Amino acid sequence: MVQPVIVMKFGGSSLATPERIRHVAQRIARRRKDGYDVIAVVSAQGDTTDELLERLRAVAPNPPAREVDMLLATGEQQSAALIAASLSALGIDAISLTGWQAGIATDGNHRRARIHTVTPHSVRRALSAGRVAVVAGFQGISGEFEVTTLGRGGSDLTAVALAASLGAGCEIYSDVAGVYTADPRIVPDARVLQEISYDEMMELAAMGAQVLQGRAVEYAWHHGVPIRALSTFDDSPGTLVREGSTMERVQAVTGVALDRHVSRVLCESVPDRAGTAAAIFGGLAEAGVNVDVIVQSPSREDRTDIAFTVSDEDAQAAFEITKSLLQRLGAEGATLDPNVAKVSVVGAGMLSRPGVASRAFRAIADAGVNIIAISTSEIKISCLVRRDGAEASARALHAAFDLALESNPS
Amino acid sequence: MVQPVIVMKFGGSSLATPERIRHVAQRIARRRKDGYDVIAVVSAQGDTTDELLERLRAVAPNPPAREVDMLLATGEQQSAALIAASLSALGIDAISLTGWQAGIATDGNHRRARIHTVTPHSVRRALSAGRVAVVAGFQGISGEFEVTTLGRGGSDLTAVALAASLGAGCEIYSDVAGVYTADPRIVPDARVLQEISYDEMMELAAMGAQVLQGRAVEYAWHHGVPIRALSTFDDSPGTLVREGSTMERVQAVTGVALDRHVSRVLCESVPDRAGTAAAIFGGLAEAGVNVDVIVQSPSREDRTDIAFTVSDEDAQAAFEITKSLLQRLGAEGATLDPNVAKVSVVGAGMLSRPGVASRAFRAIADAGVNIIAISTSEIKISCLVRRDGAEASARALHAAFDLALESNPS
Repeated sequence: MVQPVIVMKFGGSSLATPERIRHVAQRIARRRKDGYDVIAVVSAQGDTTDELLERLRAVAPNPPAREVDMLLATGEQQSAALIAASLSALGIDAISLTGWQAGIATDGNHRRARIHTVTPHSVRRALSAGRVAVVAGFQGISGEFEVTTLGRGGSDLTAVALAASLGAGCEIYSDVAGVYTADPRIVPDARVLQEISYDEMMELAAMGAQVLQGRAVEYAWHHGVPIRALSTFDDSPGTLVREGSTMERVQAVTGVALDRHVSRVLCESVPDRAGTAAAIFGGLAEAGVNVDVIVQSPSREDRTDIAFTVSDEDAQAAFEITKSLLQRLGAEGATLDPNVAKVSVVGAGMLSRPGVASRAFRAIADAGVNIIAISTSEIKISCLVRRDGAEASARALHAAFDLALESNPS
Repeated sequence: MVQPVIVMKFGGSSLATPERIRHVAQRIARRRKDGYDVIAVVSAQGDTTDELLERLRAVAPNPPAREVDMLLATGEQQSAALIAASLSALGIDAISLTGWQAGIATDGNHRRARIHTVTPHSVRRALSAGRVAVVAGFQGISGEFEVTTLGRGGSDLTAVALAASLGAGCEIYSDVAGVYTADPRIVPDARVLQEISYDEMMELAAMGAQVLQGRAVEYAWHHGVPIRALSTFDDSPGTLVREGSTMERVQAVTGVALDRHVSRVLCESVPDRAGTAAAIFGGLAEAGVNVDVIVQSPSREDRTDIAFTVSDEDAQAAFEITKSLLQRLGAEGATLDPNVAKVSVVGAGMLSRPGVASRAFRAIADAGVNIIAISTSEIKISCLVRRDGAEASARALHAAFDLALESNPS
């Protein structure tokens, strides 16, 4: 009889200590006992990735991306070996596999490689032999046989890609109980959602919700892999991410997201002619900078102001690039404001409900916070605010849309 | 014009801190400037290997050898990435390579794999492109595509194997200035040898001299690769290990070695019949235990005592195995004495000189130390002594053979 296959992915904080490693091994053992063939995908332990980057920057302030990948990939390889050994100590047959051993083939784009094929022969062989396959997440191998990594949170993507390739279920374990209506550290009455659709989850992830990586959700959506996000440390059911129900949605808004790690670049008095925006954002894209909210002011005397946000991480690079681009364009110059935050409401239900935007703006205003810029999609409304007003805005939105109630009337 | 190729191997203590990493990168840069194509082979930083083993044992007291290799191999991979990045920071083009990327193919014997072929396509490609190839030492890949490691000091072997494969010179850098006539921490007037033959170096390495791994010396001998052992931290010329001169040797003894990490197993009253020794040492070999000095007492009433030494690391396992073997053989039992040490004199010159052994025994006796057992080869005399008499014995031997003098008359 063929057993069902499940991919269980464990994040870094779930693996941070020897006790937690042993606890994770026991959770995997339980799943084995339940009758599943298990593939475990693991992140690097605790703060390993940051520590490795620190060690690297101490010898090379601007290390080549190739060497960053070579270094960082060791973190997940270590976790995989530790979990496999810990399973063996429980009498569970297990082997660890690196990304290349597990058949995770990517393009050659170091630090943010994209998976192009998954050929999990060795994983299948391990399962057939009755073993747990423990796969190092976050990493793959390029066509040139170079070690690549998949970007922050990339172990989620490894898990989803393996689940898609093997027709398996996918469970993402972390130190939070699932997907919340808002960050419970900021909004005390936030609660765990039972379900959320892929599109809503992607918006939440893009808006800074850390529980699942956005690209992993996108991959899962594309391949029809349901993901359950749940806690390593308790037995609550967590949140199921899956194709949205076709029935009319009860709620306009599913959750509130807050991203405090954004900076704003303002390009002042840019010549308002065709190709200006393309030149700026093309130049940034070439440098690998992801730009988020873009706002262009109405033109005045053939001049316009263009503002955009980037992650704090990319801010300095984006600022330097923008300044040199603007010089060539004959613009006045650029300023960098690192003191902003983005607060968003997300919900597929807002498609069919008017008035969601105005209710959101009103809630933020009533909290005494000024909105600097607005960006909307079909299922999301994001407001840029000063960083010191961000948490109050999130709480105000959570309350305004009654998100603390299981079946809110919004 | 084809440039000469040199392999430079750096040990863990040469890479222990960011400052040392940068220092090593500068040494490599200097060699590039001298006009060499450089392959750098690196060990894990400082105590990384021991720390990783500790982390592993915290979750699995008896970890599978396969997972030990998977875990330990990350140490060298990290060093390689750090050195490659540090070279890049100096403006030197460099790439790191894992063992498998460098084409180090081994058998599947985890933790002590043997290299069977070296296919350094990627190393050659890097050199042709004007790059330094920084290879993670100590590791390879088996025919099953599993990560393997080459045993303690295995990075030396990686360096020698690459040098042999590429027709390159081989330099082994460490925190000591070369091969000494004795350990200078114990024998204050010990000096660095200018040259030593492969066979002498192998005996010294086997006897506990840490400066070069014995298997690496054996491989170098077999493939005719001269090795220079020298210090990372000064510019002294170190010691050249090469085929011995055919001219008559001036010295009977080249060096004194001291190994304090040995234990002695005594098998008491073993039935003295054919096959007894074969059964004991066959059983130990099967378990992968390396046995060193073996002494069998003259038989008394069809019974004999057999004693042997093993490394402290293997002592407990060897003792348990021996006890169970002896039970089957009808022997009285075994005792384990962890309190012994082995002191040796090594020199190809002793072949043609009588009286070396007696002079060695006299020196130890005059130091007031009792000899427990003796083992000799054509170019080596080893004496087992109590651990607390070991250092005095080494000093006595060093003085007796005038090793402090550049051209001693012994």
